[in-house]
Amino acid sequence: MTQQKQSLVVFSAHSGDFVWRAGGAIALSASRGDDVHVICLSFGERGESQGLWRREGMTLDEAKRIRRDEATQAAETLGADIDFLDLGDYPLRVDDAAFNRIVELLRLYRADTIITHVANDPYNRDHNLAHETLLQARMVAQAMGHLTDNPPIGAPQVLMFEPHQPEMCGFSVDLLLDITEVFDRKQAAMKCMGAQDHLVDYYTELAGRRGVQAVRNGGAKSITHAEAHARLFPVVGSELI
Amino acid sequence: MTQQKQSLVVFSAHSGDFVWRAGGAIALSASRGDDVHVICLSFGERGESQGLWRREGMTLDEAKRIRRDEATQAAETLGADIDFLDLGDYPLRVDDAAFNRIVELLRLYRADTIITHVANDPYNRDHNLAHETLLQARMVAQAMGHLTDNPPIGAPQVLMFEPHQPEMCGFSVDLLLDITEVFDRKQAAMKCMGAQDHLVDYYTELAGRRGVQAVRNGGAKSITHAEAHARLFPVVGSELI
Amino acid sequence: MTQQKQSLVVFSAHSGDFVWRAGGAIALSASRGDDVHVICLSFGERGESQGLWRREGMTLDEAKRIRRDEATQAAETLGADIDFLDLGDYPLRVDDAAFNRIVELLRLYRADTIITHVANDPYNRDHNLAHETLLQARMVAQAMGHLTDNPPIGAPQVLMFEPHQPEMCGFSVDLLLDITEVFDRKQAAMKCMGAQDHLVDYYTELAGRRGVQAVRNGGAKSITHAEAHARLFPVVGSELI
Amino acid sequence: MTQQKQSLVVFSAHSGDFVWRAGGAIALSASRGDDVHVICLSFGERGESQGLWRREGMTLDEAKRIRRDEATQAAETLGADIDFLDLGDYPLRVDDAAFNRIVELLRLYRADTIITHVANDPYNRDHNLAHETLLQARMVAQAMGHLTDNPPIGAPQVLMFEPHQPEMCGFSVDLLLDITEVFDRKQAAMKCMGAQDHLVDYYTELAGRRGVQAVRNGGAKSITHAEAHARLFPVVGSELI
Amino acid sequence: MTQQKQSLVVFSAHSGDFVWRAGGAIALSASRGDDVHVICLSFGERGESQGLWRREGMTLDEAKRIRRDEATQAAETLGADIDFLDLGDYPLRVDDAAFNRIVELLRLYRADTIITHVANDPYNRDHNLAHETLLQARMVAQAMGHLTDNPPIGAPQVLMFEPHQPEMCGFSVDLLLDITEVFDRKQAAMKCMGAQDHLVDYYTELAGRRGVQAVRNGGAKSITHAEAHARLFPVVGSELI
Amino acid sequence: MTQQKQSLVVFSAHSGDFVWRAGGAIALSASRGDDVHVICLSFGERGESQGLWRREGMTLDEAKRIRRDEATQAAETLGADIDFLDLGDYPLRVDDAAFNRIVELLRLYRADTIITHVANDPYNRDHNLAHETLLQARMVAQAMGHLTDNPPIGAPQVLMFEPHQPEMCGFSVDLLLDITEVFDRKQAAMKCMGAQDHLVDYYTELAGRRGVQAVRNGGAKSITHAEAHARLFPVVGSELI
Repeated sequence: MTQQKQSLVVFSAHSGDFVWRAGGAIALSASRGDDVHVICLSFGERGESQGLWRREGMTLDEAKRIRRDEATQAAETLGADIDFLDLGDYPLRVDDAAFNRIVELLRLYRADTIITHVANDPYNRDHNLAHETLLQARMVAQAMGHLTDNPPIGAPQVLMFEPHQPEMCGFSVDLLLDITEVFDRKQAAMKCMGAQDHLVDYYTELAGRRGVQAVRNGGAKSITHAEAHARLFPVVGSELI
Repeated sequence: MTQQKQSLVVFSAHSGDFVWRAGGAIALSASRGDDVHVICLSFGERGESQGLWRREGMTLDEAKRIRRDEATQAAETLGADIDFLDLGDYPLRVDDAAFNRIVELLRLYRADTIITHVANDPYNRDHNLAHETLLQARMVAQAMGHLTDNPPIGAPQVLMFEPHQPEMCGFSVDLLLDITEVFDRKQAAMKCMGAQDHLVDYYTELAGRRGVQAVRNGGAKSITHAEAHARLFPVVGSELI
Repeated sequence: MTQQKQSLVVFSAHSGDFVWRAGGAIALSASRGDDVHVICLSFGERGESQGLWRREGMTLDEAKRIRRDEATQAAETLGADIDFLDLGDYPLRVDDAAFNRIVELLRLYRADTIITHVANDPYNRDHNLAHETLLQARMVAQAMGHLTDNPPIGAPQVLMFEPHQPEMCGFSVDLLLDITEVFDRKQAAMKCMGAQDHLVDYYTELAGRRGVQAVRNGGAKSITHAEAHARLFPVVGSELI
Repeated sequence: MTQQKQSLVVFSAHSGDFVWRAGGAIALSASRGDDVHVICLSFGERGESQGLWRREGMTLDEAKRIRRDEATQAAETLGADIDFLDLGDYPLRVDDAAFNRIVELLRLYRADTIITHVANDPYNRDHNLAHETLLQARMVAQAMGHLTDNPPIGAPQVLMFEPHQPEMCGFSVDLLLDITEVFDRKQAAMKCMGAQDHLVDYYTELAGRRGVQAVRNGGAKSITHAEAHARLFPVVGSELI
Repeated sequence: MTQQKQSLVVFSAHSGDFVWRAGGAIALSASRGDDVHVICLSFGERGESQGLWRREGMTLDEAKRIRRDEATQAAETLGADIDFLDLGDYPLRVDDAAFNRIVELLRLYRADTIITHVANDPYNRDHNLAHETLLQARMVAQAMGHLTDNPPIGAPQVLMFEPHQPEMCGFSVDLLLDITEVFDRKQAAMKCMGAQDHLVDYYTELAGRRGVQAVRNGGAKSITHAEAHARLFPVVGSELI
Repeated sequence: MTQQKQSLVVFSAHSGDFVWRAGGAIALSASRGDDVHVICLSFGERGESQGLWRREGMTLDEAKRIRRDEATQAAETLGADIDFLDLGDYPLRVDDAAFNRIVELLRLYRADTIITHVANDPYNRDHNLAHETLLQARMVAQAMGHLTDNPPIGAPQVLMFEPHQPEMCGFSVDLLLDITEVFDRKQAAMKCMGAQDHLVDYYTELAGRRGVQAVRNGGAKSITHAEAHARLFPVVGSELI
């Protein structure tokens, strides 16, 4: 059976989010030959680089450079290409030019599936803005009368990866994605993120816990690691799942 | 690619529910060679047989007989076998013996997927009891220390079919099931339900409306009819859906 | 303009609930000539008669007698008739005979509107059971094949009166009922409830607070007292409200 | 009985929304002699004019002109006047000048009731912005210290019409509005909307389905067509509804 | 036992909100020697000064001056200092400069606890913006790479005080704060707010009602007045509460 | 400062639940000298003893005996006494006699705080019944007219411990309880539960993850292990938490 090559876009507020929360999904898609595109709205340079700001003499430019290098290496490890929009973090701001560029990227990459943040994270409002921006940009990218270099897109599914404290964000698990076969790749990518290395163990354990739940929910006994995702739109198909 | 034969159980409070609300899912599964088992807790003899009670001299036994015949014919049309538990309706009551029989049927049929009612339908509390009973029975059927003729089951997914007034039941659509290719079979089954024939047009139109939404949500342009279902547990798998 | 006489049923777990929480609605309906029937499932003899149990030598029978007298007098003051089902409280229990009697009363009174408790009060599970019982009985009373002395009913609206701690019960206000013109009658009825006289001031103040909100929500400036109710089913009509 | 003339404002993100979703409400109000004012924030020229963009040589100005003509004709058919604010669509943007104009229109029209979009439509964020803008403008229009040509308004009710996929928008039905007597007028208005003519059948069927539900919820047997609306604020009044 | 001095920040959209809704919390903290800082985003000059706008010749500047005086006096009465940001009301607007000033104040005051508005008040969108602004500013104030005169802060708890119509705002009560011992001070502060003096009785009665509920929820019988607050983040500690 | 000795009741559907989910809370309370009473409704003999049923020749009696021994030892390790009600599991059933015994235990132990299951766990309906039974029993135990050997109780707080899959149960975290100092005791107790030894690592990791979140939410840097709990009723007190 030949299946068509798919396109996946991961829409990430800061340059680390896609690694911790969707690294497995990315590696899995890439391992099948799908195109995976990461769009980083910011480098998380101010708010998610604690490791860097403890170093003497750190500057914003240097923090951004290091974070860009780390994220580039992580994306490569996972098998994805990556765009950095450099919109600033804490707070993230999206002006009209940035918005239009995002619309154009969505049209260019013609995603079948998009993964992004949840709608309401009380700890981190940059995440919320990323979610809202993605929904707006998806809508505009669909508009026949929005005339740009690339044609309108269809209706890609939107998944939301697991936030740091899911119970505080109204996160419900719709998909336990089996990432067992690519977990070593996710781990390698996580290790690229030197500025947040305190999170490697945390997300390794979380993957194990989600793996246990995957088995408990009917998955194969061989599953050891999983990632939790929620879904925004109905699945359309002819399978009862 | 050979896929393993699946088992589907449809757990229906009254003898019409499985036709109107899951007829497409049943026909689709059956058309692929899956086993489909319908379990009817009651005949809907008192509360869902308006057409019959307008006939002079109708009795409860006669209403049950007619409803049983109609449902048997509908199940056959759809390609499913059917069990009638005759537990009474309006109100439905499930005693210990009935409960144990349900557990045993779940073990016997070894469902990969179960379809039933939503948890909270303000119009029809029989539906709620069916939902609750299914969840309890699924749990007991899984228990290793519940020793019966059949071994414990795993963790089948539970879908909830669309209730008559979805917005009043907290129903959200997780799956728009493409039933285009089997819709003629669903229609034939609906026509078997003479005691509720006022519903045929209603559910035909609903299938068309759900079909439009399926296309709008990224489904193939060829979809003309769909059924909406919600999902209770996370999907476990290696596909990003 | 002549309007048809309406029928209102108030379905109350304990013999005080209808006074504190729906006394205004009852008095208002009665003052227009509507039929109002209060159904008390219990006397609240064990759990809502603190004033009585502080008296030396109090017995269950005596508590019930006093509560019956108080509630009878309150109902009369409000303009309603009243049934006592004496099903016990703390906990309330509804067996099949009681359930069937309730169904029959609903058929007998042919309510256009029913007022009862909310679905989920964490403080008082008798209230939840009253809510659930009402919904089940309403459904059975509608069933054409449930053959009793009285014919099936249509689809009466169900309102839920305001619980003691609305924010803990998921209560949202759908209706601010202007009870200004009958508030003296509600107050007189509240004063009949000697076993709970600590509540008179509380509910008088609450009516004032709801009155302020009624004005703030567009009501006439002349409103001084209101009662809050929630609604379970859609309103059907030709007015935009 | 003489009733005072009412004022209704329909606040519509795009120039088609008021027809498909509130056409019945408008026609019903107009048929009673009420004033009905439609405020269109945009023409839906980019995102809701698929029919137009399939024509060769279509331009934004031409699309807007056609949509304006269609909407003007539809409003007239329904019996309403209409304002076009031309704020752009996909995405809709509301700047300070536009906001102030909206406030002034609300003061000018002195609505008793306003109908607009739901708060959260995942498919269409223009709808969300329209909802939010209306709530902000309503609040400012009430402020005594916001001094403009027209005096402050009171507290009009806000209804939300049914979105295209209600279950995905948290839409619950509070009002099933009987539009049987004006449905021919709604149908005539829908036929004015040539750029979206694929929707006429869809909304005709939906009106039939809502009509069935209206009867099922206690409405007169003669109801054949209805529109579903939700309500944002409590009803204040002296009727038990 | 010596306890460390705490810092409390009350973040108020208009200059009256902190008095009516958090006056007890402020007085209680101040009475223990904690630092309490009120930040008023606006004076509520346009939308919450009805009393003033009924006076002949009132101007915006004069309204702001009077409201500033009243609020200053109220804060002093309660034992708090106060900042006025004068950002305008109905609608409130927060530009980048204002946002940065707020971040800096949060860093300067180093709050252990912050009290502000709920997330979603349908009546008053200024309240929502205050809530959102606070969450964004808290996040930015925590960012190590946001370099300003004051160092980053930790993770203060955020409480939400009770809105005017709690059931319409999704408000659930997490804390019934016993303000019995400082209620006279709250009352004195409320009396400073001449432009809204119609609210003094209302909030006095509300405090009594919340006091009754505090006792009913296990509080000391001596409690006569309480304030209701909701909590946004988990409590961290070693007490089972 | 002397604090009064408190009483804690942990209400557990099966004999393992109190260990995995509230072991830290129990050990912490016991270590301060509080009385802690565990009430086990069943032994989890049929559904939560997988390890046992894999042994040849296992019987229900033997499974119950082993589970009783394990739980007794775990309770002792944690510092609690324990009651076994032996009501059966999968499904748990609570008859009138059992219910009355539970009411009496609540009166006997005079809990200040009760910890139990969440209201709605789709995987395990025994948990739901335990929750509901506790709420009903708490209510009856408060009733002045329910005359038994022990006097009525006040209004104990009810906490809900973290279920196995919190996002599927609507669980939100209200309390991150610092169990660092007693975690070795919880671990020792977990090791007593031989029939479920696959869970020890799982709950050890979870405690670590909750510990990280406790620090992130403002807890002391020294916290390494925590337990998450939700709260059913408002906290009453004079602290702003």
